[in-house]
Amino acid sequence: MAILDRFFEGDIRALGRIISHIEDRADGYRDLLGVLYEKSGKSIRIGITGPPGAGKSTIVNGLAHRYLNDGKRVGVVAVDPTSPFTGGALLGDRVRMNEFPAGGEFYFRSMATRGATGGLAAATGNVTVALDAFGFDITLIETVGVGQVELDIIDACDTVVVTVVPESGDAVQTMKAGLMEIADVFAVNKSDRPGADRLAMDLRQTLQTKPSEKDAWKIPIISTVAVDAKNIDLLGEKVDEHIEFIKRSGQFDLHRREQIKKKILSILKNQFQREFLERLGAEIDFEEIVDRIMKGQTNPFKVGDELYASFSRS
Amino acid sequence: MAILDRFFEGDIRALGRIISHIEDRADGYRDLLGVLYEKSGKSIRIGITGPPGAGKSTIVNGLAHRYLNDGKRVGVVAVDPTSPFTGGALLGDRVRMNEFPAGGEFYFRSMATRGATGGLAAATGNVTVALDAFGFDITLIETVGVGQVELDIIDACDTVVVTVVPESGDAVQTMKAGLMEIADVFAVNKSDRPGADRLAMDLRQTLQTKPSEKDAWKIPIISTVAVDAKNIDLLGEKVDEHIEFIKRSGQFDLHRREQIKKKILSILKNQFQREFLERLGAEIDFEEIVDRIMKGQTNPFKVGDELYASFSRS
Repeated sequence: MAILDRFFEGDIRALGRIISHIEDRADGYRDLLGVLYEKSGKSIRIGITGPPGAGKSTIVNGLAHRYLNDGKRVGVVAVDPTSPFTGGALLGDRVRMNEFPAGGEFYFRSMATRGATGGLAAATGNVTVALDAFGFDITLIETVGVGQVELDIIDACDTVVVTVVPESGDAVQTMKAGLMEIADVFAVNKSDRPGADRLAMDLRQTLQTKPSEKDAWKIPIISTVAVDAKNIDLLGEKVDEHIEFIKRSGQFDLHRREQIKKKILSILKNQFQREFLERLGAEIDFEEIVDRIMKGQTNPFKVGDELYASFSRS
Repeated sequence: MAILDRFFEGDIRALGRIISHIEDRADGYRDLLGVLYEKSGKSIRIGITGPPGAGKSTIVNGLAHRYLNDGKRVGVVAVDPTSPFTGGALLGDRVRMNEFPAGGEFYFRSMATRGATGGLAAATGNVTVALDAFGFDITLIETVGVGQVELDIIDACDTVVVTVVPESGDAVQTMKAGLMEIADVFAVNKSDRPGADRLAMDLRQTLQTKPSEKDAWKIPIISTVAVDAKNIDLLGEKVDEHIEFIKRSGQFDLHRREQIKKKILSILKNQFQREFLERLGAEIDFEEIVDRIMKGQTNPFKVGDELYASFSRS
């Protein structure tokens, strides 16, 4: 494919088109992704998550700058809350992204969370693979940490920065266990506001009471003011330390292997669904089955087992 | 099962245990669900969604009261934002639920959105089936409208109330298309606050510009103050009107049939995954495959196709 040649020559427009191709699941996207997959694996994936209004994009901005200054190539995937309810007028923040040098060094892509017919986590993963294959050293993945899909996105990252702000104190209070589970590094952002110290202290105390294995990673809590770039370098250092830590301990590889297994399984399931719908769709009277379920004569589990058995035999 | 007998006799503790059994996917939960499925189908499922702080639980409260006064049996499933980030100190709101009469008339259950290893939408659907089979006339399903999983939950409802507040004006502005897609009825709650009229007017205008088919449902926009029960009755009437409308038009049945088909497909996919892991798990060297992918010698799509082919043959 000519576009792939241009992609591997570093043509950023080819990157954009290939990402769109993949997002749209247009003809041949699986083969395309397969090729990209084989060229990927080197980019570090850093997740940045937190509530709307926590300053995630500013932190992404700051971290991106830091890596760019370091001579790294940086790609950003933002899982945009086009859902009606996550609030946060992110558009203003996005404009600031233009400050970055254009060209192959920096690339920003936002994912639509709606309209895409499901599979957002998979789609985000696919875009990450494209950025990786394109040659970005660092991929920053920004997402609002709500819901299972977003957790799946976060789960695919090598390291995760959870951003909280004093205003989210109540939520943090209720949800500590969940926070601890996700975070590799905490950023207490807008730390010049009232309540920031209490929030940081509170997180620290909870982390201390958490039973932790010897030689385990100690989750750092960094107080930042992202709009003033305060402590963003320190935050970046902690992120890098975590990457080093998991590389040494073997967790980095182990986690990536788990991700690959999940991907294979999801490919298999999709393949099964496709074939099932093709093969049995013509042979069975789905409407009649639904009729019987609606009448309470059978149920989806029984029907599922029967159909599965007949699929296996056919 | 003795517990099923007690369940069908209306024992609310049996209901609670059976729901837990299903949520935990404990032994035999599929058979249990199958039985419940065959006894379900009569309860109306009303979804209430909106941003944190929009007063969803107060609206659920109000609607529940209205149906209870009407002699209906009401079940509530709240998909609790135990995710760190949705904010909203719902616990306070929850306590008010105790105002309701205890016993078979009213039942409240909150779902954990974390900890449950995926499948939240399915789990919520299962609980809804249990409530339905238990004999509740109305099931109110409350969820924060963020993310694909939550949209799946909402999709399973017969009718959906989207709750917005003046404070969410900006988000509404950006996300109108998504809002229109979900809502059957709008509640502009906290309508005594500044900006409420503008928000309602704005929604109204957008709805008018939306191309709508003749005889299509006209989405009503009700200004409520849920804490004062203002216009909650009107909101409830509109919900009832929508139910009547879709029953007359056939959409009600059509939508339920679609849900059943989705359920069957998801059961089939899970069955496939189980069998795949069992049958091939022993025969193939998954780690060796992952090794080759990590080295860029192959990719998950190729591997997926190969494994799928060998699975089909075996």
